[in-house]
Amino acid sequence: MSKKLTKRSEDYSKWYNELVVKADLAENSAVRGCMVIKPYGFAIWEKMQAELDRMFKETGHENAYFPLFVPKSLFEAEEKNAEGFAKECAVVTHYRLQNDPDNEGKLRVDPEAKLEEELVVRPTSEAIIWNTYKGWIQSYRDLPLLINQWANVVRWEMRTRLFLRTAEFLWQEGHTAHATRTEAITEAKQMQDVYAEFAENFMAMPVVKGVKSDSERFAGAEDTYTIEALMQDGKALQAGTSHFLGQNFAKAFDVKYTSKEGKQEYVWATSWGVSTRLIGGLIMTHSDDNGLVLPPKLAPIQVVIVPIYKNDEQLEAISNKVNAIVIDLRKKGISVKFDDRDTFRPGAKFAEYELKGVPVRIAIGNRDLENGTLEIARRDTLEKKTVAQDEVIAFVENLLDEIQENLFNKAIEYRKEYTTVVNDFKEFKKAIKKGGFVSAHWDGTEETEDRIKEYTKATIRCIPNEAIEEEGVCVLTGNPSSKRVLFAKAY
Amino acid sequence: MSKKLTKRSEDYSKWYNELVVKADLAENSAVRGCMVIKPYGFAIWEKMQAELDRMFKETGHENAYFPLFVPKSLFEAEEKNAEGFAKECAVVTHYRLQNDPDNEGKLRVDPEAKLEEELVVRPTSEAIIWNTYKGWIQSYRDLPLLINQWANVVRWEMRTRLFLRTAEFLWQEGHTAHATRTEAITEAKQMQDVYAEFAENFMAMPVVKGVKSDSERFAGAEDTYTIEALMQDGKALQAGTSHFLGQNFAKAFDVKYTSKEGKQEYVWATSWGVSTRLIGGLIMTHSDDNGLVLPPKLAPIQVVIVPIYKNDEQLEAISNKVNAIVIDLRKKGISVKFDDRDTFRPGAKFAEYELKGVPVRIAIGNRDLENGTLEIARRDTLEKKTVAQDEVIAFVENLLDEIQENLFNKAIEYRKEYTTVVNDFKEFKKAIKKGGFVSAHWDGTEETEDRIKEYTKATIRCIPNEAIEEEGVCVLTGNPSSKRVLFAKAY
Repeated sequence: MSKKLTKRSEDYSKWYNELVVKADLAENSAVRGCMVIKPYGFAIWEKMQAELDRMFKETGHENAYFPLFVPKSLFEAEEKNAEGFAKECAVVTHYRLQNDPDNEGKLRVDPEAKLEEELVVRPTSEAIIWNTYKGWIQSYRDLPLLINQWANVVRWEMRTRLFLRTAEFLWQEGHTAHATRTEAITEAKQMQDVYAEFAENFMAMPVVKGVKSDSERFAGAEDTYTIEALMQDGKALQAGTSHFLGQNFAKAFDVKYTSKEGKQEYVWATSWGVSTRLIGGLIMTHSDDNGLVLPPKLAPIQVVIVPIYKNDEQLEAISNKVNAIVIDLRKKGISVKFDDRDTFRPGAKFAEYELKGVPVRIAIGNRDLENGTLEIARRDTLEKKTVAQDEVIAFVENLLDEIQENLFNKAIEYRKEYTTVVNDFKEFKKAIKKGGFVSAHWDGTEETEDRIKEYTKATIRCIPNEAIEEEGVCVLTGNPSSKRVLFAKAY
Repeated sequence: MSKKLTKRSEDYSKWYNELVVKADLAENSAVRGCMVIKPYGFAIWEKMQAELDRMFKETGHENAYFPLFVPKSLFEAEEKNAEGFAKECAVVTHYRLQNDPDNEGKLRVDPEAKLEEELVVRPTSEAIIWNTYKGWIQSYRDLPLLINQWANVVRWEMRTRLFLRTAEFLWQEGHTAHATRTEAITEAKQMQDVYAEFAENFMAMPVVKGVKSDSERFAGAEDTYTIEALMQDGKALQAGTSHFLGQNFAKAFDVKYTSKEGKQEYVWATSWGVSTRLIGGLIMTHSDDNGLVLPPKLAPIQVVIVPIYKNDEQLEAISNKVNAIVIDLRKKGISVKFDDRDTFRPGAKFAEYELKGVPVRIAIGNRDLENGTLEIARRDTLEKKTVAQDEVIAFVENLLDEIQENLFNKAIEYRKEYTTVVNDFKEFKKAIKKGGFVSAHWDGTEETEDRIKEYTKATIRCIPNEAIEEEGVCVLTGNPSSKRVLFAKAY
């Protein structure tokens, strides 16, 4: 293990970048803005995928797969959506390389192999999917159509950061079609709820559910429902969005259905997605200056056991004891690693698993064998406890739940501390400077939103679902407002 | 359900294309050569993925994710590999679209946004991965490195067919690094065994394990181990390959490790992959003129239950009975669908599930309720049987195993019938005309291989692992040969 992490208080951004690399989660690749997700980072993504996929299926969705490429003519069909993504599209223009006649052993693009129509690498798949749905939907019997896709997408971002903003990222995108406006809105809100449940129950990351203002809405949507989390540096993270798309895509791709009454109607749509960005949120919600802190429900390794021994005989005695414990823990569905490598000393192993955020560490030595005990350390609080061997299974099971709960509660406490209610612009600026969410009245205009952003770099994260109707005045303009909205600087 | 399938005996190729579409597995998309995998087809892929992923992890591999794009300079580093794929590469040349000034509402590629270096959409990931491994491997302690990736890849094929050959396809690609030649070869062979086990035990598709001849080897490999299956039209399908890459990529990307003895050595490599092509193999191994036939272990729905009723009262009585059966079947880990839709008649449902290859269909009507019976039909033989309700769970459990076994045995029988041992070229041509594998002596030269291909369209599928050393003469040239190899026309 190389030298220590930068402290969060010194340079939060540097701490994050170092942690992602040192904890073996991901690294930058040879391709500008694209990351390599390393096995340990990918194992977290697999855990996330498994839970989300289960939740999507339980709410009636099926998976499918649509092409990576979108022909330009389809891509531009829904104009607002196309306009929103045009500036960050990777475009395939040729389909062949050839030997470079001027450069032996090198290749060049074959000028003869130019595509008649350019292909956009999907930044999102509404266009290609709605062009397909046209063939799938004829009658009300074909609705609702509830489909999800796990895929890679590409958005040519100029400033990238591992997990948080990369040119290529992995995500899931749900695309549903409905007979009525109400049904589509219900679906979009349901998926917002699914995302919030996942964020809070599995990631232990509290989120505010709300709706986006006009300027922050997804290109091509009528409404964007969002979940917004708060990171330890006081910045907000948009963690997942679910869009009510109205009939925009149905009209752009001419997707109609015959109703029960025999009328031809345009279909109503939603789309919703979360991405590998969630891993960034997970890291920034819980981790500390010692490294990663993972909630047990998403930790690839929940418990690590490190033997402390002086010779092979001791290791064998310890291993016998540990193997029985491993079996019993696994029976409970707990993932355990027994690290008996002899190439590293216990201290180095302790440091490694601390850095990698393994929730529970068990150490067991010769003395423990004599006493029938072992030492259990929890990653979240760094507390250690000596526990009787015959109580270890129940103790660990309970401890994992406790850690999961503690992480959530800590994050809730943090958010409480960093949510400020303000009533004028002086307070507003002070609160934004402090960091966190700022709850303030806003007059509902894009102009005010823009000016506030210009003055403070804060944007409207959402109009919370739970916002109370109350009379108030806009913090900037003094114009009337009926609801508080949440502002913050954001990732 | 629309009109009947074309018969296999009339036009096998047309039968296949129709079946893929009618059984809701996949369809062509708006993008040349790219397919849409529909939910039912994707559910089969998910089942395949789950089993393969488990098998990879049980053999010590971890998943990771590497970029979709490969910079041209990396792509061309391993020359043979680059040469092998250059002709089918989709190339990204630009990263932005803009409004087309000559065409209102349309977009065009922004000529200002040309990439300095073109990006190849990965046709396979050796280049980008070995460029990454360079940073991961320093010492013998970092080896072996055992990594797998689930991903999409693009190969610009001119003639495409759903699942069998598409411009974009889904696959997994394992990429491993080892300290010694022997260890790498052992790994490559181990993965060939894993693929064979999956093909035979889960897909019920018998395969021949063997090694490729020089001309059929993967570009950049020293040896390609393959599993070859036989389709019902007598053509062979390469179902999976595992490559021993020698030190080719280690040298191209300068990946060395320090050995225990302190010496700098190049690393040894393997790569191995199977793709959505397997779904094509699955279809063509078992299906019949009535539609898809799926082996129970990979069927998204293993058992469908269709109620036969005249009124709501009858449906309710039947449903009460069925719900209990459904619960008991699910307890056994069997996936069951109770299709009580009132928009379709039983006959239409029977036809649908026959077409979709559901292994077991249970029908239950009013008379059955009185008699305590139900009717069970198996998809593979189309046989029906009346079974007592209280025996249904054990009966179905047993029947699913029987169907799985029967499908494999049938395929084995077929392969026996269509494997011909020949000793001269007249016999050879006759056997190739009949179809199937032809076991023949070959003089080991590429020239002979090419001539045989020219005369008969047959290629060497593999030199079987189980080939016996025997003296013989090449069927074409009469030159000496020590082993029989397998020829066939192939997909």
